[in-house]
Amino acid sequence: MADNHAETSREGGVNAPPLLDLTIDNITPNTIRINSQSSNARLTYLMARLVAHLHDFARETRLSTDEWMAAIEFLIGCGKICTDEFILLSDVLGLSLLVDNINHPKPPGSTEGSVLGPFHTHDAPTLANGASMTSDPEGEPMLAVCTVRDTRGRPIPGVTVDIWETDSSGHYDVQHADRDAPSERCVMVSDDGGRFWFRGLKPVSYPIPHDGPVGKLLQMLSRHCWRPAHVHFMFGKDGWDRLITALYLRGDPYETSDAVFGVKKSLVVDLDKVDKATAEEYGVEEGSWLLKHDFVLTTQEETEKLRDQLATEALQKLGLSLKLVDHLPVPDLD
Amino acid sequence: MADNHAETSREGGVNAPPLLDLTIDNITPNTIRINSQSSNARLTYLMARLVAHLHDFARETRLSTDEWMAAIEFLIGCGKICTDEFILLSDVLGLSLLVDNINHPKPPGSTEGSVLGPFHTHDAPTLANGASMTSDPEGEPMLAVCTVRDTRGRPIPGVTVDIWETDSSGHYDVQHADRDAPSERCVMVSDDGGRFWFRGLKPVSYPIPHDGPVGKLLQMLSRHCWRPAHVHFMFGKDGWDRLITALYLRGDPYETSDAVFGVKKSLVVDLDKVDKATAEEYGVEEGSWLLKHDFVLTTQEETEKLRDQLATEALQKLGLSLKLVDHLPVPDLD
Repeated sequence: MADNHAETSREGGVNAPPLLDLTIDNITPNTIRINSQSSNARLTYLMARLVAHLHDFARETRLSTDEWMAAIEFLIGCGKICTDEFILLSDVLGLSLLVDNINHPKPPGSTEGSVLGPFHTHDAPTLANGASMTSDPEGEPMLAVCTVRDTRGRPIPGVTVDIWETDSSGHYDVQHADRDAPSERCVMVSDDGGRFWFRGLKPVSYPIPHDGPVGKLLQMLSRHCWRPAHVHFMFGKDGWDRLITALYLRGDPYETSDAVFGVKKSLVVDLDKVDKATAEEYGVEEGSWLLKHDFVLTTQEETEKLRDQLATEALQKLGLSLKLVDHLPVPDLD
Repeated sequence: MADNHAETSREGGVNAPPLLDLTIDNITPNTIRINSQSSNARLTYLMARLVAHLHDFARETRLSTDEWMAAIEFLIGCGKICTDEFILLSDVLGLSLLVDNINHPKPPGSTEGSVLGPFHTHDAPTLANGASMTSDPEGEPMLAVCTVRDTRGRPIPGVTVDIWETDSSGHYDVQHADRDAPSERCVMVSDDGGRFWFRGLKPVSYPIPHDGPVGKLLQMLSRHCWRPAHVHFMFGKDGWDRLITALYLRGDPYETSDAVFGVKKSLVVDLDKVDKATAEEYGVEEGSWLLKHDFVLTTQEETEKLRDQLATEALQKLGLSLKLVDHLPVPDLD
């Protein structure tokens, strides 16, 4: 690539590489150079790779002015709809899943992660074991009986568990304009045996919001906008890697075509029916749905070590000369 | 890259490649495949390259969840500010200049293009030759005397010329909250000799809007937000390639560090002073500033031919097997 603007101009108090006569061939190194003046090496690296990919994209596609304008209008449309549209965009482009996989690698035997999605809230009530988190009389009742353990099978008490799902109509509470209190969501804390149990609904498949630009994009791409039936779980406790995941019902028509790429084989579960003994033990109706699952957390230390190791291997494979600073790659200039 | 989800699932009426167990390594081909179901080959190609670059970016940088969230927040911030923030973002990342260069290649001897920027409007009054387009009493008066010609030097009459610049404070009219009518902007039509002339202001350098996310980004990158003094011109006539350009004043402190990469050597001009004869001819004050410039347009046919030729050469150089359909590359699968 032509690169003939290397000297630094200091005229008029401007301390920047001189930019002039920028062409298809030299705009990229010049943009990267003018973006490389801060002392933040990570930011410099992120911007350099962002600009290189953005420009390569335009060069490889010979992006037309009309297409560029359509992209701008798309972003403007996303900005107008609501603050979740950009997360949705990241979700349907597979970026959210990729970023989660990069940041939260799971060693064998631990529970895999899934996408957070835009419907987690911070106002869910903390419920005692056995409580109901639903106010929807239409759904099919489901008892969930779960444990949280470490990779050696030992229960972890005191884990905060955020749980959320849609109502029987396939909508989260926040999607109802008349929402006055949280519903189909709660926070639980695992007991001394690492256990938590609650009453919810058998989840249903539902379309992601598709009345905005992201929905139009899916339509243009002949993609459907459905997610298979699932319940979200988020586990947090000091010293443990935060686990954002979900359990998916086997046999859902969208099991292998989730619009946001979240399903993993190890997260697909079968529901049972509550038998008489269980009904009595948990005070629920015999014959209602039963979800039993054991979640396995990893420590923050384990995860960081694994993440660093995988990052180092991946970057070597890509032939990039980088070092990790605060667990994040920056160019190794030494 | 692992790629073991090739069959097509038709279960439950869903006609899509099965997605399951997506990992850092196989998310990209799977996302590209599910995006490849429409009959629009160009859209399929654009999305495939977009997804590949977006995912490669995340993989190469091992993008952290916090950084991903910062990017989402940045886009949300852009959407909240105003509809121009995304254009500004494209401008400061060098993408606007790149897209203009790709789409409007200029053969030698013709006037080069520059960035449009976010301040062109469609409400500028059409003025007769010699009229004033400014209502700012503070600025330094400037007479502009220009021609529009073809590459063989023949005048082109009837060209619509949009002209816009800031006032003496460095603001476009639309940046003033109390704007009640267009100012420092007009539309002219070239006469039979290809000439147009008007009275405006000697342009001043000014900062691009920097109270939003893009301004914060520039600050983080230790970049200034200034554009060198310039006047915008846009030329349109059926059969001629639309020319979006600007003339820049030589010696401006930001001449070689334009925040949006617009300056080209051939667009940097020297101002003269109006002499006595010119003052009488044009009815302006002797000693005021004089901008003389001859613009050279190319035909739409010439430009399309050159664009196709440059695209074909560039794509061959990149080793991409593509063909041009409607002047835009799509994969050549034949």
